[in-house]
Amino acid sequence: MKKIAVILAGCGNRDGSETHETLSVLLAIDKRGMEYQCFAPEGDFSVFNHIKGEPTGEKRNLMTEASRLCRGNIKPLSEYCVNDYDALVLPGGMGAAQNLSDYAFCGEKMSVNSEVANAIKQTHSANKPIAALCIAPMILAKVLGDKNPILTLGCDCQAAKDAIALGCRHKVCNATEIAIDEKNKLLSAPAYMVATRISQIFEGSDNLIQALYNMI
Amino acid sequence: MKKIAVILAGCGNRDGSETHETLSVLLAIDKRGMEYQCFAPEGDFSVFNHIKGEPTGEKRNLMTEASRLCRGNIKPLSEYCVNDYDALVLPGGMGAAQNLSDYAFCGEKMSVNSEVANAIKQTHSANKPIAALCIAPMILAKVLGDKNPILTLGCDCQAAKDAIALGCRHKVCNATEIAIDEKNKLLSAPAYMVATRISQIFEGSDNLIQALYNMI
Repeated sequence: MKKIAVILAGCGNRDGSETHETLSVLLAIDKRGMEYQCFAPEGDFSVFNHIKGEPTGEKRNLMTEASRLCRGNIKPLSEYCVNDYDALVLPGGMGAAQNLSDYAFCGEKMSVNSEVANAIKQTHSANKPIAALCIAPMILAKVLGDKNPILTLGCDCQAAKDAIALGCRHKVCNATEIAIDEKNKLLSAPAYMVATRISQIFEGSDNLIQALYNMI
Repeated sequence: MKKIAVILAGCGNRDGSETHETLSVLLAIDKRGMEYQCFAPEGDFSVFNHIKGEPTGEKRNLMTEASRLCRGNIKPLSEYCVNDYDALVLPGGMGAAQNLSDYAFCGEKMSVNSEVANAIKQTHSANKPIAALCIAPMILAKVLGDKNPILTLGCDCQAAKDAIALGCRHKVCNATEIAIDEKNKLLSAPAYMVATRISQIFEGSDNLIQALYNMI
């Protein structure tokens, strides 16, 4: 059975992994008869009140909160072993831009969490595919920008400009289209960078994971 | 456009609304061109660590945490007006058994949160359909047991016995089957009472919301 590793970072679009994007990926993996294993890096994040649209000042653990999306079955990212998995997926949400990287604060001068960067580099070096959604392709842009990868961040937004500055070629996509870089085995979907409805997220993720399945 | 109210209670299978069940309902509503509005009652809940499988001793707000599943767009259940909606849906998770009711602690001697009970009674009195998943049909059993409704809680489990004790007729269902009570306009799906895979949850919820759509 094919096994897919999914990197999460909290639970919620404003301070963690976007819940619709995460579950659409898990569903698309499971319905194709593949298995998923969720991971999260060490560390805490700053909690955001999703109703008021403001930070609460509280800190919570990345892995503990992310486990709400996978019914408690999650592992520390430090335990990720590339030989045990066929592909890697990074859902979006502010968790990708604030917890897995500091893109939200630093733009193209961003850095990536070392555990996340290592997992991406190992997977890419093993010639296994990597998929990312929403703002998470910025993480691939930073780690693999020297490979001149094709990625999407949706429309011609600031993130697309930043990805180009990091060495990427940017493909404009609508809510359910995906970008495929066959050479680098990188896949990306714009998700809530441009989508407005949950059904677009599930359709886009299904397209993304089908393309991933085809590459394994 | 048809509008469906969805009652949530936190975020996570062990202390709130089950995330797979909740998003499978929101997706099934949206893909049929209907609109959803999430609600949650007032109050706090006891936080559970989903990895360790134990309570943390912390309290969090029901509505604030539930809003992570609907990108912040949630209203207090006290604002639910039956005239504005075509149907009501209650996803499962321990939130239904601990926060929306006290079934987890009291069994068939359970009581239901008054805001939740009012919303159910008003919707039923207006002859509009109500759907519930997983353990949430117990709430319908308590509030509408005197109507001798047909419900499912999956297999012949203790919850099924308790529902029968409350006046219900119980239909055994597998993971993707649903129970339909045409007369009372009640629909139920066993979800994680018997399911083991996320794809079963999305298939069962799709069946449930299709039947709801047909009843509106």
